[in-house]
Amino acid sequence: MHKLKVKDMDLESGGPLIAIINQEDATTLDLYTADRIRIKKGRKEIVAITDIAISNKLLKPGEIGLFEEGLIRLGVKNRETVSINIDRKPESLHIIKKKMNKESLNDKEIRKIVEDIVEGNLNQIELTYYVAANYINGMNDKETVALTKAMIDTGDRIEIKGKDKIVVDKHCIGGVAGNRTTTIVVPILAAAGLYVPKTSSRSITSPAGTADTMEVICNVTLPIEKIEKTIKKTNGCMVWGGAVNLAPADDTIINVEHPLSIDAEGQLLASILAKKGSVSAKYVLIDIPTGKEAKVKTLKKANHLANQFKKIGSKIGMKVICTLTDGNEPVGNGIGPGLEARDILWLFKGDKRAPQDLIEKSVNLAGLMLELTGKAKKGKGKEMAKELLDSGAASKKFMEIVKAQGARITKPEKIPLGKYKFNYVSKKTGKIKHISNKHIAKIARIAGCPKDKKAGLYLHKKKGDWVKKGDIIMTIYSDNSTRLKYAKATFEEINGIKL
Amino acid sequence: MHKLKVKDMDLESGGPLIAIINQEDATTLDLYTADRIRIKKGRKEIVAITDIAISNKLLKPGEIGLFEEGLIRLGVKNRETVSINIDRKPESLHIIKKKMNKESLNDKEIRKIVEDIVEGNLNQIELTYYVAANYINGMNDKETVALTKAMIDTGDRIEIKGKDKIVVDKHCIGGVAGNRTTTIVVPILAAAGLYVPKTSSRSITSPAGTADTMEVICNVTLPIEKIEKTIKKTNGCMVWGGAVNLAPADDTIINVEHPLSIDAEGQLLASILAKKGSVSAKYVLIDIPTGKEAKVKTLKKANHLANQFKKIGSKIGMKVICTLTDGNEPVGNGIGPGLEARDILWLFKGDKRAPQDLIEKSVNLAGLMLELTGKAKKGKGKEMAKELLDSGAASKKFMEIVKAQGARITKPEKIPLGKYKFNYVSKKTGKIKHISNKHIAKIARIAGCPKDKKAGLYLHKKKGDWVKKGDIIMTIYSDNSTRLKYAKATFEEINGIKL
Repeated sequence: MHKLKVKDMDLESGGPLIAIINQEDATTLDLYTADRIRIKKGRKEIVAITDIAISNKLLKPGEIGLFEEGLIRLGVKNRETVSINIDRKPESLHIIKKKMNKESLNDKEIRKIVEDIVEGNLNQIELTYYVAANYINGMNDKETVALTKAMIDTGDRIEIKGKDKIVVDKHCIGGVAGNRTTTIVVPILAAAGLYVPKTSSRSITSPAGTADTMEVICNVTLPIEKIEKTIKKTNGCMVWGGAVNLAPADDTIINVEHPLSIDAEGQLLASILAKKGSVSAKYVLIDIPTGKEAKVKTLKKANHLANQFKKIGSKIGMKVICTLTDGNEPVGNGIGPGLEARDILWLFKGDKRAPQDLIEKSVNLAGLMLELTGKAKKGKGKEMAKELLDSGAASKKFMEIVKAQGARITKPEKIPLGKYKFNYVSKKTGKIKHISNKHIAKIARIAGCPKDKKAGLYLHKKKGDWVKKGDIIMTIYSDNSTRLKYAKATFEEINGIKL
Repeated sequence: MHKLKVKDMDLESGGPLIAIINQEDATTLDLYTADRIRIKKGRKEIVAITDIAISNKLLKPGEIGLFEEGLIRLGVKNRETVSINIDRKPESLHIIKKKMNKESLNDKEIRKIVEDIVEGNLNQIELTYYVAANYINGMNDKETVALTKAMIDTGDRIEIKGKDKIVVDKHCIGGVAGNRTTTIVVPILAAAGLYVPKTSSRSITSPAGTADTMEVICNVTLPIEKIEKTIKKTNGCMVWGGAVNLAPADDTIINVEHPLSIDAEGQLLASILAKKGSVSAKYVLIDIPTGKEAKVKTLKKANHLANQFKKIGSKIGMKVICTLTDGNEPVGNGIGPGLEARDILWLFKGDKRAPQDLIEKSVNLAGLMLELTGKAKKGKGKEMAKELLDSGAASKKFMEIVKAQGARITKPEKIPLGKYKFNYVSKKTGKIKHISNKHIAKIARIAGCPKDKKAGLYLHKKKGDWVKKGDIIMTIYSDNSTRLKYAKATFEEINGIKL
């Protein structure tokens, strides 16, 4: 046992727990870079990976530099004393090696790995080997089920008590600009008496995630107690999943998948279904946008994925329904957090500027869930969803949820947009054949999405619309003139709007 | 282009180039953790991976924190100004993904990856995916040859000029305690007129590497010019490879292999042959210790490996000969840097305490190389090697090399050993059946090897020897009483010496 004084390094590692110690202490303790140490403060204990400071400038002998994650987990502050011990390598390393050697893993082995991920016992190299092995060797259904269950069990859960309460959830396999159906489907289903504890992500590579867009309208960063209160009061919620600890192993895995855009099927299935299991959902609707410009390129792959979702879902006691939608064209008119939020508020205010394609897609999705849960008869779901929207029931529900989460801007005209804009004017008359989802997303990103909530673009025309020479087809918004200039130049170079 | 002031972070990353910037600058530049930036100072430029400081305590806005590797590569000091630009992802990420998808890579693709490794353009996650893909999917011979060549070309080379000069090298596939044949084979071959530019590694998991042991006797950390001078003067050298930049990609790859003890065959072949190619060796002898306790477990695997070495070697213009040796028993009597160095000095002084098995193995190995290069006739190599040793020619050569590198201790009795010791006394009379190489290595490590050069153990008896009750079989040495106690307890628990 060795005592060291904590130095707050004021850094986040973004995953593994890291501790820096002075070379002198490292020699005394026979510690090397990347060795593991057990750090103890009172009853709290963490296992961290060591880095060694080569002189006394950053860290003196007797000090231990900790990153934010470790400080929080240990509950220690700068200058407090901790005890340290050398730790042996975690058991899961052997299990990962086994998977690399093409062997299948059993439930217990997968659980051990997930536990070590959540505890921060694996460094990024070790975790990457696990992800690589799953990607290259694949996971069988048993392994996928085990991974899903382990991810649910090692995180917090949103519990919705009451046997008669039907808990549902939805998910979209990303990649379609403006596809904000969640914000419409949730209120419709909640208005129908279902429970919809919806957590969404922020965007990583797209112009906006549902959480980014909803954040313009209301608070989305809620602690778990506040989420449960919101659901109890309104039957639903639309919050940012990153603020709660649901299936936390998944986020850690996604971090190492990101550099190579790894998207192993088994991992994808487990990742999505674990998040749904963590909120106690029994009925789950998965939207699979399909097409050349979507994440899922072919109908064959989409159908295969749909079957896998159903199969794995049923093995963890979840009824899953999948629907294949068009993944080539953007949905709605606004692209970017502010512009998408405006579309949604227009929709719930009954404004005629509301995007019809977004409404159509949303009532289709909601209808499927109403039928799946028996709220509507077979073939009557869409009708019921439309009725809930037209009657104002969904709109009322939307406002209830927004208010419960903490409303920000609920009037569409109050949403601020970028002060610089560029209008793309049609040079000829004709019918729009295709608006490239990918190119639109790229331009919105360059304009400043998702960080700059005022940035993005507005599609005045969509696929199938007739335009005359001189008509404005699209407006790009940005709060930064350089970004706007660059977005405009990129648009003119790749022009994804085909007449 | 953005200007930032350098802050020396006084840390080594151990591989990738890392730059820390303040959150405020990150926002301005739209930079995220793990994004790449190009940092420029004068004509020098590096690509670093960013980490973001969350407040101003460690790093103020306008500052950029650099690690040792980056400071050296850029040639900048604390408080100097550098320019930075956002960089796109390196091309090799696509190539790595291709390999993960089970496709073979061509020469150009492999070279691109190796270049990016050497430039520090890949982070540890990305590099791990490459290593994992090679391990799981395997490399074909063409890929192994391409990797070997690319690793040679992206590092420094030791050139030995003169057409008539025959350059040879040897290597042992590790894992046998006390196996210090290099220190005897090199002087024998150099005395025979061959050129032997031997670079060795330090130990990672064994009690001592050749560099650790030789460091007791002389300096082994030499710049490349000094190594070339030593070879010119003496025909040979025995230096630490880590001090020179030979096939540097290999060391970076080994770093990420370490946590999971990855040992992909293609990687192993390329790693060893690249080091040999970097010193311009045309004839290479590979010692493959084989057995349950060695790295290579079966004769079948050893023979396969031997064939692969020959095949890949011939494709890069290298004549390779392999020899399979016993990998179950330790070689020599001393285990640990100091004790092994004493064995070697005894040997060259003609002291009768010199370990006979080490001599026998060394003349066998040297003999094979003498025959391979035509210095000795077929079947006469061993005889010639023995003659060079017995005549004192090898001993004289050893001392020449030691002096040229910078002698430290050349008298066996001057070598300091741990002040605490434990004698293992035989409780019965009998013949020693087996001394476990693995267990002996473990005990020596616990006693303090390789860091504590005085630590280790001395085997007074070896396999086949008769012992009487009361005879000392082994002595453990350590400079730390706790370590000795623990080593003793571990020995008594697992006792790897079977009578």
